[in-house]
Amino acid sequence: MTKGRMEAFSDGVLAIIITIMVLEIKVPHTAELSALKSLIPVLLSYILSFIYIGIYWNNHHHMLHATTRINGGILWANLHLLFWLSLVPFVTGWMGENHFASITMVFYGIVLLMAGIAYVILQNLIIAKNGKESTLSRAVGNDWKGKISPVLYVLGIASAFIHEALSGMFYVVVAIIWLIPDKRIEKVVED
Amino acid sequence: MTKGRMEAFSDGVLAIIITIMVLEIKVPHTAELSALKSLIPVLLSYILSFIYIGIYWNNHHHMLHATTRINGGILWANLHLLFWLSLVPFVTGWMGENHFASITMVFYGIVLLMAGIAYVILQNLIIAKNGKESTLSRAVGNDWKGKISPVLYVLGIASAFIHEALSGMFYVVVAIIWLIPDKRIEKVVED
Amino acid sequence: MTKGRMEAFSDGVLAIIITIMVLEIKVPHTAELSALKSLIPVLLSYILSFIYIGIYWNNHHHMLHATTRINGGILWANLHLLFWLSLVPFVTGWMGENHFASITMVFYGIVLLMAGIAYVILQNLIIAKNGKESTLSRAVGNDWKGKISPVLYVLGIASAFIHEALSGMFYVVVAIIWLIPDKRIEKVVED
Amino acid sequence: MTKGRMEAFSDGVLAIIITIMVLEIKVPHTAELSALKSLIPVLLSYILSFIYIGIYWNNHHHMLHATTRINGGILWANLHLLFWLSLVPFVTGWMGENHFASITMVFYGIVLLMAGIAYVILQNLIIAKNGKESTLSRAVGNDWKGKISPVLYVLGIASAFIHEALSGMFYVVVAIIWLIPDKRIEKVVED
Repeated sequence: MTKGRMEAFSDGVLAIIITIMVLEIKVPHTAELSALKSLIPVLLSYILSFIYIGIYWNNHHHMLHATTRINGGILWANLHLLFWLSLVPFVTGWMGENHFASITMVFYGIVLLMAGIAYVILQNLIIAKNGKESTLSRAVGNDWKGKISPVLYVLGIASAFIHEALSGMFYVVVAIIWLIPDKRIEKVVED
Repeated sequence: MTKGRMEAFSDGVLAIIITIMVLEIKVPHTAELSALKSLIPVLLSYILSFIYIGIYWNNHHHMLHATTRINGGILWANLHLLFWLSLVPFVTGWMGENHFASITMVFYGIVLLMAGIAYVILQNLIIAKNGKESTLSRAVGNDWKGKISPVLYVLGIASAFIHEALSGMFYVVVAIIWLIPDKRIEKVVED
Repeated sequence: MTKGRMEAFSDGVLAIIITIMVLEIKVPHTAELSALKSLIPVLLSYILSFIYIGIYWNNHHHMLHATTRINGGILWANLHLLFWLSLVPFVTGWMGENHFASITMVFYGIVLLMAGIAYVILQNLIIAKNGKESTLSRAVGNDWKGKISPVLYVLGIASAFIHEALSGMFYVVVAIIWLIPDKRIEKVVED
Repeated sequence: MTKGRMEAFSDGVLAIIITIMVLEIKVPHTAELSALKSLIPVLLSYILSFIYIGIYWNNHHHMLHATTRINGGILWANLHLLFWLSLVPFVTGWMGENHFASITMVFYGIVLLMAGIAYVILQNLIIAKNGKESTLSRAVGNDWKGKISPVLYVLGIASAFIHEALSGMFYVVVAIIWLIPDKRIEKVVED
């Protein structure tokens, strides 16, 4: 089975997710700077989620590039990942509109955590299908990023009950960790 | 005629359908758990329809993978299928917003039934074009899933007049039946 | 210059146009049949426009399939066509929401007419680039459909001032004329 | 690393951006010409932004066509460009709805300026990766368009404080400059 259409479909869904988030930044009906100022939390939450979806697209791109064989289970694991990512515009909008209130930070973290878990499931299924000696398997290696991310998400969720800023800090840290392109996969792939 | 652009266009439409459904989950203006609670039926209907569109994409993927030749009639049969699927976000939103009221369950079932019929028409046209001895024809085989689904849809529509939960159960059962990846096609294709 | 990305981009835009139209069918807040009944004109206008966009995608597919060379002018002629088609959801929604009022029928016809002209411009540029002896040039032939369509659009626009139904009839006739797949191109291409 | 998926993802995002802008042209609830008249500024701002996104797609197409190698940094520079372009529907809608008020013209210019800068960064990274002797490097040449555009954007932003029409003029001039297809790249590529 070829991976081409799975890539095309994922690209389509991710492109739509990243773009419809901008629809949450409602056009103000007045032409005043103050109207724009009240949109700053919405814009900030948009930027954070844009980076997260960008990271997922980037890693998804690298992962599938190093993949040669897929099957029905992988297609569904991929849809499972896309499901959680499709909820990102919702939690992003909720968080932005309510100025990062605790409860919205909790659900933002939950969606990120579930997407992270879905990604790991997808990765494991692909490695299982392509073999321990596959390019991807060697590229993923010990995967410290994948291991530390859920811990940070849980800390972000828990700390939202103490202070919103603390929670936000954890989500920003995960984004920064992943923003650095995965040199391991990149290097192995380019060999 | 190549099937490439038909796949690309279908992927695009299905990716958009699956993603814009999330726009029906309106961002609450308050940061309270109760606001989220009232969205649970909307979320449940979203999950069900996400799985349905996922199933269609999955089967569409397998079907076209086993296809070599298409023609104008097939292009239109494909558009006919996409038309019914494009109504899924509407009936999903209507069903979710009105907490699975009978009348909304009826129309949800009708759209699913019509999409199912459209899929069978498309499949038959493709088999007719590619020959009885084609990979697809052998893969589809006796197609019990395709035969039982319309029956279950009709039962779902009819039972909506008795009780909503009964109707919903039929729609969930069809989803579960199809969720199991089509081993037949997969196997034949991989040979 | 390859035509691949122009096809991909056009597919994307057409897929989005055909799908976002469904967003104009606003989900009713009540679960009553009467709520659905008032949506019938919106649904009818959606079906007509769905068929029109389907026709454009179909013909666009055939035209580019028979094309080997493109250039900057063709890219812009293509964007020009997509611009007019991007206004289809707007005029469709306006027409549907106002129950096919005369003035909305006039603007629906104008957008269709402009899209038709844009298509002819694109076709001529492609033929000019690919030569009189190209597959496309032979396939298009005397192009009676392309010649009669603008006449029917103008009749549709003019008759909207007399009666809406008369105007609608002209738009339906054009759709039917084109719904029949272009055997000429299909035949030449398959040779 | 292949450029295919980066092209596909960019095509998807640009196709969505160019199309969702049309959603800002809200369907009037009355069937009167006056209702349409009040939409003229929205339509004009839509046309301008449609051309801008069209230019970006066109140049992006040419640039990547002349590219052979990409890396992680290029993927992120591309996402950075798409981020600024994703804000175009927002500033377009704001500008249109408020009849080109000064403050909206300022932010429209800022988003265009940032997108322009993001494009130059992307171009430089691609040239650095592909070498000074690459097709793209020769094609870009002295790049007077890329150099004059930011100057005109800044003039457009500054002059918005004097008169809106003056500001708009600058933005239209940049669009006209770029509307002329990049003969240099086109020529080099076709060689």
